[in-house]
Formats: sequence, structure tokens, C-alpha cells
Amino acid sequence: MNQLELMKELSIAGKTKMVLMVMDGVGGLPGPDGLTELEAARTPNLDGLAKRGIVGLTTPARPGVTPGSGPGHIALFGYDPIEWEIGRGVLEALGIDFDLGPNDLAARGNFASVDKAGNITDRRAGRIATEVGARLVEKLRQIELPGVETFVEVVKEYRFVLVLRGEGLADGLTETDPQQTGVPPLRVEATRPEAERAASLLNQWLAKARELLADEPKANSMNLRGIAKVPPIPKMTDTYRMKLAAIATYPMYRGIGRLVGMEVLATGDTIDSEIETLRAHWDAYDFFFFHVKKTDSYGEDGNFDGKVHVIEEADAALPGILELKPDVIVVTGDHSTPWALKSHSWHEVPVILWSPYVRPDPVGSFGERPCMAGGLGHIRHYDLLPLMMAHGGRLAKFGA
Amino acid sequence: MNQLELMKELSIAGKTKMVLMVMDGVGGLPGPDGLTELEAARTPNLDGLAKRGIVGLTTPARPGVTPGSGPGHIALFGYDPIEWEIGRGVLEALGIDFDLGPNDLAARGNFASVDKAGNITDRRAGRIATEVGARLVEKLRQIELPGVETFVEVVKEYRFVLVLRGEGLADGLTETDPQQTGVPPLRVEATRPEAERAASLLNQWLAKARELLADEPKANSMNLRGIAKVPPIPKMTDTYRMKLAAIATYPMYRGIGRLVGMEVLATGDTIDSEIETLRAHWDAYDFFFFHVKKTDSYGEDGNFDGKVHVIEEADAALPGILELKPDVIVVTGDHSTPWALKSHSWHEVPVILWSPYVRPDPVGSFGERPCMAGGLGHIRHYDLLPLMMAHGGRLAKFGA
Repeated sequence: MNQLELMKELSIAGKTKMVLMVMDGVGGLPGPDGLTELEAARTPNLDGLAKRGIVGLTTPARPGVTPGSGPGHIALFGYDPIEWEIGRGVLEALGIDFDLGPNDLAARGNFASVDKAGNITDRRAGRIATEVGARLVEKLRQIELPGVETFVEVVKEYRFVLVLRGEGLADGLTETDPQQTGVPPLRVEATRPEAERAASLLNQWLAKARELLADEPKANSMNLRGIAKVPPIPKMTDTYRMKLAAIATYPMYRGIGRLVGMEVLATGDTIDSEIETLRAHWDAYDFFFFHVKKTDSYGEDGNFDGKVHVIEEADAALPGILELKPDVIVVTGDHSTPWALKSHSWHEVPVILWSPYVRPDPVGSFGERPCMAGGLGHIRHYDLLPLMMAHGGRLAKFGA
Repeated sequence: MNQLELMKELSIAGKTKMVLMVMDGVGGLPGPDGLTELEAARTPNLDGLAKRGIVGLTTPARPGVTPGSGPGHIALFGYDPIEWEIGRGVLEALGIDFDLGPNDLAARGNFASVDKAGNITDRRAGRIATEVGARLVEKLRQIELPGVETFVEVVKEYRFVLVLRGEGLADGLTETDPQQTGVPPLRVEATRPEAERAASLLNQWLAKARELLADEPKANSMNLRGIAKVPPIPKMTDTYRMKLAAIATYPMYRGIGRLVGMEVLATGDTIDSEIETLRAHWDAYDFFFFHVKKTDSYGEDGNFDGKVHVIEEADAALPGILELKPDVIVVTGDHSTPWALKSHSWHEVPVILWSPYVRPDPVGSFGERPCMAGGLGHIRHYDLLPLMMAHGGRLAKFGA
């Protein structure tokens, strides 16, 4: 019996309320003064929660493995991210709020430049402006394929999403991007027999698309990457017998929430408006995924002070969550995004778990080093949901 | 190779003596003074052992999962309890010292009340007295079934055990309890073809039993639950090449010991008489499972002081074990039973491991918070047996 099956067997309905607050990329590395972003930030509310709760460090995927946002979140939602892989095309579609269904095959598209011989000269088509991309996408929408619907959507600059919708479209398809210039794009190939039809349709689409854009000065070709369907992932609603809501300012996180069975709540651009949304829907759900984006963005920019500032902003918002009196709250991140690396990293993520039934540890501040001594020890992201469920009184006893 | 296969490959005979002292449900939660039951108890002997040994926290089944007594003990005996599930009927039979064999199919029985239409009006037959249950069981012993022996045994109040003994009885059978009143009991159904015969025999038995009890004022029907055979669990004698003994005051723990290959030693009702039994059989066995029950009972009652008192009693008994000079001793619990929850819980269990070859950590007292800082870190129950074997010099090197 795997973990999800076990959870499905043990989960019982209840009246407790739980909040999973994700500060995207919150984990960091020491800055000039020897403190990490989180340690340097003034966070009286998080420190208070750490003092009353139990803290630790959590690994998103596997030791040493840096996760993307997809795996990072899927893991927080109780899935082993190595087992439940979500294709790049799917994430890209979720990232523009595209409502993917089970018959959809999604690909990330990159406009590219090719020379007369058809060899790639620029894999990003000179990073054309988003408006240019939008005009090209408009052209590509004319393309029709036999027996399937097609959707082409602009993402940003040279990036777009292609979705084929129809019965019997299987994934198991290679990418066309050769990852180098001076050679032509590859054909889409099926890696299993069921995917032959999809491969053929995608190659037809690519041929027509390149014909339509042949006269474009820069974006006269394109590549398709991460061609995938939504995996048949068990819904959290079903596994945990809960009504779940997602509150996030960025579409990708809303999309991942929707994928696992959460209802997506409309919200504004700020943490304050997210708190407002949480308050407005408090009675209607058992579980809230509450996402704070900007911690990651500043980490990616290598902006130590900016990240410190967003952490302090999230800290200031915490009382607004706590005054709703959740029965269980977890504060953590999907992964680390240390300012020093300007990217996601493999480092463990600090975590606080609070409920009236935690066994409090002696740690009274929230930071990477304090969490090393925390009572939770070193756990995996996918252990957090079971721990939340247990502390919320929502798991029956296993065996007699 | 799974863990048990690995242990079987590496285990070597030896002369070292090991004691696994299980304080049932010992793990707890802070009480009025901020200390847990174990932290509040005066335990100079356990603290001394913690100081000389290495301590940590151990998870019985999985993070967040609350185990029953069966899974909790099976895990301490080195089995992954999710993999080796033991049916409720089997545990109920073990709990009344019924000596279950490999051809036995055991069910927990609950007397119930039904109305004239056959719909259940009380799933516990008004909680009839044990003496009434005993009289009914006597009646039910007349029932004969083709090709199998039947045993009916009283447990307590409305509970009894039914065992069918015979060749070719397979489990994979549904329960009859519909878990609600106003509907009739369900039929036993086979969930796999091999179990068809057992299902048919059990339904015959139920029909005759209800006929026999038709005139009873309260207990005029019954349900069968947790119908199961003893799982084909590898014996510890065989895996670890040891002679093992179980010393426990309650039948269920003796039964679980017998199930995994331990010899059950006759003992009295007190910890002192258990120590006496240990001393009397010290030379005859390699490994002793020494069970202290009352820590759990007081936890289930929410009796903080009572639990503290039993822990102190167990502490006072420890020198009696240590003076026998075991080569390895582990002190832990099968699970936590915090006074604040009045039930088993998912919380990790404090553990001490001592042998002349442990690497002692700086922790010098036995309690949940001290153990958070222990050198063993956070382990799983099923890791303890291998650690005991290693410290007892009973595991050969793996590989060259």
C-alpha cells in the first residue's frame, strides 16, 4: 500500500481548518553578515509561531535534487514528485490559467530563427517582444488538424503554448529542440506506439506553422518542448476527504492547485488581498493553500534585501491568518531560492508546524539554522500533508 | 532484497543477550507544567541509561499515522507494519490467548440486536454483561460446519471470537457490520475466488447462530468483523537466528510475540513479577521482549499523574534488568498515548539504545524534548531490531 492509498484508507472527514502557507523559494544562504535572508528578516510573528510549534527542515524531492515549481508544490501536496511527474507543457499551460482537461496534450512552444537551409540560428528568435509573439500566435490559430481541436496561446516574449484536444491523444513524445544552433529542429517522435497519432498530428502542425511564418524576420520557426498530458493524479479531495482552496497571485500555482483538486479562489496581487480572500472563504473549505510568490522572485534576482523585505511582509500578514484560528498551520516553502545562487536550489526548506497537539520543541525563531535543531528533524515535503491531517484529527488509527 | 531478507542473510548466532523493554504508549504531550508525562516523571535509572547510551525518536508506522497495538509491536519487532497487516480478528483471538495456527480463520464477533424485520437496532446488543455473552457463546458452540472445526470464545461484554479451523480456508472476506442501525447485517462476501468456501461456511454459521439466538431479548443477532488469517510472517527465530522470549501481562502482547516466533513465558500481573520471570529464564534465551502495559492504560484514561507513576515504577524496575547485564538494551514504546488525547497517537516515541558499543550522545535525560536532540535522530521502529542485532555483535558484514 503506497502513501496515497494509505491516506485514502485512513482519512476521515472533520470540521478542523488547515492552512498551508507557502513562501515560494523561502530557503536561502548566508548573506554578507552571515545570516540567511530568513534569519536576517525581522519576523516576530513567525518566530512566535515557531516557539509555540515544532520546526524542522524539509527536502522537496530527494537530497541534492533541485525541484522546479511543479515538483516543489506537488510534493507539498503529499505526492512523491519523482513518481508524479508533471510535463513542462502542462505547467506552461497551467501558468497561463489554461484549463487543461484529460483529453488535452500540451506543449511549450519556443519561437526560433532558422536560416535558409533550415538550421537554427537563434533558439529564442532574438527574444521577440510579447506583442510580436501575440501577433504570431494569432496567425498560428488558423491551422486546422484532422479530428482534434487546437489551441495556441501566448505566454511571454518568444514563448507560447500549443494544446491539442481530442480523444486518444497519448503522450510519450520527444521534443523538437536540438538544444544547439546550426542544426535543424528535430521531428516529434513517439516513444511508444499509442503516441504515434499525436506525433503525426504535431509534425503536421509544425509543417503548417513554419509555412505560415516563413516570411517573419526573426521568428520564422519554432520548437515544441515538454509535450505532455495531465497525469492521472489522484485528487486531494478524494484522498483526504476535504474541500480544498488555492489562493495564489500567479497562475501557475493556481493551476497546480486545480490539478490536484483544489478550487481556485479569485484574489488580488498583494498578500493583503490574499488574506482578504482567505477571510471571505474561511467557512467554505477545510484546507487552504496560501501562496506567497515574491520571496522566490527576489531570490532569483539575487536581491538579498528584497527577499528579506517580502519575508517581513509575509510575517506581517501572518496575524491575519492566525486570527481566523486555524486548527493546523504549516509555514514553509516549495524549495529554496538562495540569493547567492539566483536560482532554485536543492537546500532543505525551513518549516513550522503548529496545532494544539504538536509536541513543541525548544526552538523559538524561524530560520535555517534554528530549524536544524528543530523537533521535526529532517523530513520530506510529502510527509507534511499526513502530519497536518494527523494534527487536525483527520486520520483514523491504522490497524487494531 | 527487503530488510527481512537482508537480516536473514546477515544474522549470525551468538551468546549476547538483548532486552527490548516496551513501555506501552509511553510517548506523550506537555501537561499543565509544560512537561510531558515522561519528562515530569522522576526517572533516575532511565536518565542514567540515556546518559550512557544514545537516544532518539522513532516513528511506528509512517509520519502522521497512528498505529494500533498490532502494527506498533510488529514494527518494533522489525517488520514494516504497512506491509505486514494483521487482521482485527487475529488480534482479538491473540488477545484472549487463543493459540492461532496457520489453518485458522479468525473473526471478531459482536452480538447485536435486530427487530422483527431483521434490521439492526443496536450494534452492541445493549452492551450485555460478560456473563450473558458467555452463556450465548456456550449456545453457539453447538453449531457444526462441514469439513472444519469451529471455536467460539467469549472476549468481554458483547464481544466474542469465532475461529474456523481447516485446510484451504482463505481470507479476503468482507465484514457483516453495516456500521449503522436500521438495516440488516450484510452477508460475508469473498473478495477473491479462493475465499468463496470460507464465505459460504461463515454465512452458514451466521444463519444457524441467528436461529439459535432468535429468542434472546437483546443479543438476537451478531456481526463478524476483521475476518483474517495469521499472515505468513517470517518468524524472528528464523530471520535473526535467536531464541526469543515474550514477557507480558496482557494476552494480546503475548499473542503478537507468539505470532513472530517468541516463546511466551508465564508471568504475574506486576512489573516486579515480570522481572522475576526475566531473571528465572535469563540463561535460556537470546532476546527478551519485556512489555509494560499500564503506561498506555493511564494515557487512554487521560490520567497524567497515573501515567507518570507507572513510568516511575518502570524506572524503579530497570536496575533489576540491568543487573542481569544484558549486552544490548532498548527502552521505548510501541506508540505514543498522550494524556491530552486519551488515545494512541501518531507522535514519535522516545527511545534509548545502550550497549558497550553505542556512540553515546550528550543527552542525559529520557524525555521527548531531550530525545529530539539525540544522536539516533529520527528513526523508524523497524530499524531498531537491526540496530540491536548490530550492537549485539550478531550481524555479519554485508559485502566484501
